[in-house]
Amino acid sequence: MRPPRESRPAPLSGFPEFTPEGRIVEQFVLDRLRQTFELHGFASIETRAVEPLDRLAKQGEIDKEVYVVRRLHAEADSTDDLGLHFDLTVPFARYVLENTHALQFPFRRYQIQKAWRGERPQEGRYREFTQADIDIVNVAELASHHDVELPLVTLGAFERLHHDLGMPPVLMRVNNRKLAQGFYSGLGIADTATVLRIVDKIDKIGPDSVAQSLVDDAGIGEAEAKACVSLAQISAPDESFVDEVRRLGVRDDLLEEGLELLAGVVRTAAQHVPGRLVADLKIARGLDYYTGTVYETELQGYESLGSVSSGGRYDSLASDGRTTYPGVGLSIGVSRLLVPLVGKGHLRASRPVPTAVLVAVDAEHTRGEAIAVAELLRARGIATEVAPKADKFGRQIRYADRRSIPYVWFGGVEAGEVKDIRTGQQVPVDPASWMPPDADLAPQVWSTWSDS
Amino acid sequence: MRPPRESRPAPLSGFPEFTPEGRIVEQFVLDRLRQTFELHGFASIETRAVEPLDRLAKQGEIDKEVYVVRRLHAEADSTDDLGLHFDLTVPFARYVLENTHALQFPFRRYQIQKAWRGERPQEGRYREFTQADIDIVNVAELASHHDVELPLVTLGAFERLHHDLGMPPVLMRVNNRKLAQGFYSGLGIADTATVLRIVDKIDKIGPDSVAQSLVDDAGIGEAEAKACVSLAQISAPDESFVDEVRRLGVRDDLLEEGLELLAGVVRTAAQHVPGRLVADLKIARGLDYYTGTVYETELQGYESLGSVSSGGRYDSLASDGRTTYPGVGLSIGVSRLLVPLVGKGHLRASRPVPTAVLVAVDAEHTRGEAIAVAELLRARGIATEVAPKADKFGRQIRYADRRSIPYVWFGGVEAGEVKDIRTGQQVPVDPASWMPPDADLAPQVWSTWSDS
Repeated sequence: MRPPRESRPAPLSGFPEFTPEGRIVEQFVLDRLRQTFELHGFASIETRAVEPLDRLAKQGEIDKEVYVVRRLHAEADSTDDLGLHFDLTVPFARYVLENTHALQFPFRRYQIQKAWRGERPQEGRYREFTQADIDIVNVAELASHHDVELPLVTLGAFERLHHDLGMPPVLMRVNNRKLAQGFYSGLGIADTATVLRIVDKIDKIGPDSVAQSLVDDAGIGEAEAKACVSLAQISAPDESFVDEVRRLGVRDDLLEEGLELLAGVVRTAAQHVPGRLVADLKIARGLDYYTGTVYETELQGYESLGSVSSGGRYDSLASDGRTTYPGVGLSIGVSRLLVPLVGKGHLRASRPVPTAVLVAVDAEHTRGEAIAVAELLRARGIATEVAPKADKFGRQIRYADRRSIPYVWFGGVEAGEVKDIRTGQQVPVDPASWMPPDADLAPQVWSTWSDS
Repeated sequence: MRPPRESRPAPLSGFPEFTPEGRIVEQFVLDRLRQTFELHGFASIETRAVEPLDRLAKQGEIDKEVYVVRRLHAEADSTDDLGLHFDLTVPFARYVLENTHALQFPFRRYQIQKAWRGERPQEGRYREFTQADIDIVNVAELASHHDVELPLVTLGAFERLHHDLGMPPVLMRVNNRKLAQGFYSGLGIADTATVLRIVDKIDKIGPDSVAQSLVDDAGIGEAEAKACVSLAQISAPDESFVDEVRRLGVRDDLLEEGLELLAGVVRTAAQHVPGRLVADLKIARGLDYYTGTVYETELQGYESLGSVSSGGRYDSLASDGRTTYPGVGLSIGVSRLLVPLVGKGHLRASRPVPTAVLVAVDAEHTRGEAIAVAELLRARGIATEVAPKADKFGRQIRYADRRSIPYVWFGGVEAGEVKDIRTGQQVPVDPASWMPPDADLAPQVWSTWSDS
């Protein structure tokens, strides 16, 4: 076959791909997320990439971003109306309904997969991106202590990355929809949804403009508008926010319920992950289906990345008409976190290959001996390659050096020598027992903030 | 928000999804594939799900199966002509061309991802499926010992599954295109492609019909047709096939080259993975770009699944017009292997959750103590859940039992007791040091052929 003539292909905007080194960083992070989730008893699921289009289009605000999927030669009248999922929550809700018979409730699942949105690409927003979600879903009712549990798991995952990678710590901001809705009701405001939407702009347009807009666009009184703004400005790392809210003088049962739920989250987080979670009463989250606790998370020093982990409580994650399934979930934006940090060189791997040892080949007719040495090393968990060419030893060492493979092996299964190519030191060793130091066994991953 | 009324959603034909138990089997297998590939020095990459449509459509025989991807509200004149990749080779070739500056050659990569084809779903053929590919690619030339190396890696992965899972062993059938083409040339046949295509049907229509078709449809003489059929019927676990071919009396340089290459594969495999690989001279593989060694693999006793690992050598995996990149690759059909075997219950997990221990909760106000116990256990790598409800102990034990969680923990951080709910035995233990046996730490996966 004649090779097709073509120029170098260009990357597709919004569809980031890692180099092998970047991929090692991503695997390092994903492995730790998976370990954390499994240590907390979350079961993995994967769902198909596509959902029926009508299931995706239901979510009003996102429908314009859906990618439709169709067979190239589908019959003109065929209606395989499928779309790529734009998050992992919609497919999870469908999976729960489809598999109720096979699941034990409360069902705890994690899901690490790609999702797709046709929006305009920019830093932190991609057309293809990886999410790592955890959710707990139950039949009919779900205890409120799960709203406390989920941020502990998520913050535990970020603490692990902080510890193992030197990544900066995160700060999770938590609110409760009931608290704000109860507060607005207590002020006599009927259209609480509109108020929520306006107050959500406080970081963008400032408190004064929010107060003005509440008066002008929502038609509420000036004193009430001021109270709404004051509520949104309350933030605290401990339960002191409860007294601050009470000082605003509003009384309402839903408000009290929200205060108690949020206080419970803040209190438990302060014990288990001190300094990583605050009550922040301006947090609203855009999506309509949250009905209680809502979460947002920023990477400290990298706030411009946007929220790297978001979620909340939904009283109706799914419903088959008879049974309602409430849930609470948190999603980590793996691509949003890693694509910029790896791209800027803030997260690095010590080598772009798993290989710890290159076995040199004396001559092509002794390649079998080199393969035998490699198998002895692999049997003890040492990632090993055999040199691709029986070349001058200097060239074989250069092969290893270009890939940052730390060791080159000379000799056969009976007796060999291993050279640490960083120090040049070469020592006789036994292939049946020699081990490299732990730090050389797998690629190391670190960040440029490792002193923070 | 009012819950939407809907009936239970139905599965989408051709888009298989696992239950949590099935997913644990899949993770167990994928972990072992990844470990094997990394122990052999293959670097992971992931490519985006989409490629430009013209890149996918180039592969003539598959274009009808491509899924086109388009934004729901794309402008009428927009030409975001994208399609979901139908294998991992086309995206890998594009990745190599796009990233030549960042790669070291020969480049060894593995890639475990989903691919999509719009073909009619049936057992072993899915519209969405997971593949695990390894390839070695180089600039301009690639040494032939890599054709020997790749089946060793792949067979090593299957041996691992045979050992760890009790999965039946596989048999890899290997041929070399040069051998057949040289043989046909040596017989004076000009149109070797047509002969290859007809001989490829030998398992379906039988040797007599193949001989007849070679005479009728390819217009070659009866004696030559008979020789082609004789060649295709040669199969051997050792180098004896070389003499069998020689006895057919055809002499040709390309034939000699093919014989030598194939003998090298068979000889090395017999040393390192005896009994798992045979030379089988009828193997052709459909795809046009293979130019040398070709591989097919069957799971013994499950031949009806089709080939569970296929691949071959391509002299031009990719080309930018000036530089040609030859490669050799093998792809494991993870879905083709696991979807039927898990679906039929031939591969099982000991529990559908990662959890090894459930910490019982005495009363809701002591939940904090239970969380503290769970954290002590997790810090030592023991997957632990806290009971969702401060219920009667019998009910909490039933919660664990329904999920096959083997241990329930009673008490706090100072002193506790752990019950093995399979035996009923309950003993006092220290949460700071107690460990479950290794076999209980993670879910076990086994097969119904574990005695084979």
